[in-house]
Amino acid sequence: RAPMQTLEFFVSAPGKVILHGEHSVVHGQVALAVSLNLRTFLQLQSTSSGEVHINLPNIDTFLSWEITALQSLLAGCKDADLLKRLREFTRISEDSTDTRSMAVLAFLYMYLSVFAESLASITVSVWSELPTGAGLGSSAAYNVCLSAALLSARGNISNPLTPQQESARWSKEEMELINRWAFMGEKIIHGNPSGVDNAVGTWGGFLRYHAGNISPLSWVPVLRILLTNTKVPRSTKVLVSGVKDKINKFPSVLKPVLESVSAVSCVCEQTLTEMAERGPSAEHYNILEELIDINQHHLNVMGVGHSSLDTLCRVTLARGLHSKLTGAGGGGCGITLLRPETDTSVIQSTVEELKACGFDCWETSIGAPGVQQHSSAALSQHILKILSSY
Amino acid sequence: RAPMQTLEFFVSAPGKVILHGEHSVVHGQVALAVSLNLRTFLQLQSTSSGEVHINLPNIDTFLSWEITALQSLLAGCKDADLLKRLREFTRISEDSTDTRSMAVLAFLYMYLSVFAESLASITVSVWSELPTGAGLGSSAAYNVCLSAALLSARGNISNPLTPQQESARWSKEEMELINRWAFMGEKIIHGNPSGVDNAVGTWGGFLRYHAGNISPLSWVPVLRILLTNTKVPRSTKVLVSGVKDKINKFPSVLKPVLESVSAVSCVCEQTLTEMAERGPSAEHYNILEELIDINQHHLNVMGVGHSSLDTLCRVTLARGLHSKLTGAGGGGCGITLLRPETDTSVIQSTVEELKACGFDCWETSIGAPGVQQHSSAALSQHILKILSSY
Repeated sequence: RAPMQTLEFFVSAPGKVILHGEHSVVHGQVALAVSLNLRTFLQLQSTSSGEVHINLPNIDTFLSWEITALQSLLAGCKDADLLKRLREFTRISEDSTDTRSMAVLAFLYMYLSVFAESLASITVSVWSELPTGAGLGSSAAYNVCLSAALLSARGNISNPLTPQQESARWSKEEMELINRWAFMGEKIIHGNPSGVDNAVGTWGGFLRYHAGNISPLSWVPVLRILLTNTKVPRSTKVLVSGVKDKINKFPSVLKPVLESVSAVSCVCEQTLTEMAERGPSAEHYNILEELIDINQHHLNVMGVGHSSLDTLCRVTLARGLHSKLTGAGGGGCGITLLRPETDTSVIQSTVEELKACGFDCWETSIGAPGVQQHSSAALSQHILKILSSY
Repeated sequence: RAPMQTLEFFVSAPGKVILHGEHSVVHGQVALAVSLNLRTFLQLQSTSSGEVHINLPNIDTFLSWEITALQSLLAGCKDADLLKRLREFTRISEDSTDTRSMAVLAFLYMYLSVFAESLASITVSVWSELPTGAGLGSSAAYNVCLSAALLSARGNISNPLTPQQESARWSKEEMELINRWAFMGEKIIHGNPSGVDNAVGTWGGFLRYHAGNISPLSWVPVLRILLTNTKVPRSTKVLVSGVKDKINKFPSVLKPVLESVSAVSCVCEQTLTEMAERGPSAEHYNILEELIDINQHHLNVMGVGHSSLDTLCRVTLARGLHSKLTGAGGGGCGITLLRPETDTSVIQSTVEELKACGFDCWETSIGAPGVQQHSSAALSQHILKILSSY
């Protein structure tokens, strides 16, 4: 391995939403997860400070450590012990689930594991467009960025960006490595993650998830959407167990509904494939809209709807736009499909009305690329300014 | 048969709503039809006028015929020709579906068929609490009343009311006869009716309807409801064919939904039976509410919802009350379950808000008795006044 040279680069990874199949995926049915083009951006700089810096302005966290102190942590440490030593070193207790602590732990674990015997002075700054704790895969986007940046900096994978390019992707094999390390970070943060979020952050596009198997769909279109965060707090655990209770209470009523959701995912997958192969038509969008409506009704049957989500559906439908909750439901986030011909003025007035309801709302897209390396030219001034201010 | 004596009596029959299974019943699934305690009242008086009078104040129809003229119609007439002769006589064309014409035709057909060779001078006045053309079985309630009154007046069935009683029912065999004649009236009015509406009008209570078989549930509770007519006009034919198209478009998605609706009907039937056997509990009402919500979502999946029905559901849910459309959907009527403990003030404010939305709204019940004979003491002054003013 070549010794690390002075370098600076940027990477980004997308968030994720569940397009179809939330909840029923828990009961063995097919789900479609998809990249959300609200991205997390990371800047990595090599320095000669003899220190490691991490800056996470979203969560107001700015920390640094002496390389020598970290080096001594590694002395005689087996892989299995590293996390335990790190918890002692950072004084983060075993049962902590606090966002800041988890982010720091995942960073230090990945940094020490990847660089191991030759720790380098680096400064890592991360900024995300994604809200945290909203079921949008913000931790996975963070872990994918960390994994890609640290592996590249260490030379375990290439720096795919050539001087002429603004953005570039890694090879399939390199992405598999990025995904594996990101999954480690997810395990540190979440304990027992499904692996869907980091897969979406890595591969982007649409992924089919069924009975533990994750498979990317090849050739899918990018679809414009509104993402709305109702900001109604919810507990995924409580919602998931509520659905389970309902299935046990009315099995003959609920089991066909789970089947129907699975069929919605499959018809959607088929439609997306057709859109990519033959080019999208108005009828394709009609089908996508019908499927969104059907699934939203099914999620209401499962008992994971919420009046705030009904409001989202009503406000958007009044303008001919179709919405469904995404993720756990009971509040949380919803997505609204925009058609290619949907007018900017319609989008603006919809966003305004949703904001007037107290919601956060973004115009963005789904199906965008996964993890990428960028030159500074590829990034907006806004993001560059945030990342380079540390 | 005894010659008819001078008499005056009253009969009434309930309307109907579909509690569960509308639309999916067309595709071979189980439905539950139930009597609606908005009733049609009939007064029959024997007279010596030598005329037959029919008074239908709801549809502003007041007609009379000379017995002798009607008698000549019957001369040498075979059963199969009677309807044709009646159309000529009343100048109602073959393709007429106008409510007044159909009501008159059904009356004259039933009167002439039942009395046959010994036509009697009678005056029949009918008044209904049911709106017409709203899918609430108003024509069946009319036909059941006509059938019961004419058969009783002719002596083909008993007059079950004893002097001490306010209301009385006929025997099972007599009700079967009433139902058969009412079905003839339904055929004249609707061409090809399912027979469910006249069965509900005759038997009352709850009926299970599956693949053409109609079976009354024994021992069911009477449930308080609000009945709301959104007054949004809809075409049953268009809605039914829309559901069919949707099933053909997305069979894998829609077929499980039809199954789930069937299961809703069956769980509901089971719950009603338990309520009658063990006495109703709060948990029984919880289940009935959950089933109403689930079915309403399923009907939305089938594409037969409407924003007016969403409004009904939202307005009632804001007060903890659960609603679903009943019948064809796309507007039309909805039912809202009231719990035994639901406060009068809550009901009143709900009714007021629904009326403010432009809807008609009645506090009534489902599961009430079918056709009955009444003394004048059993009827409200309001109804007596209307019926006896002709």
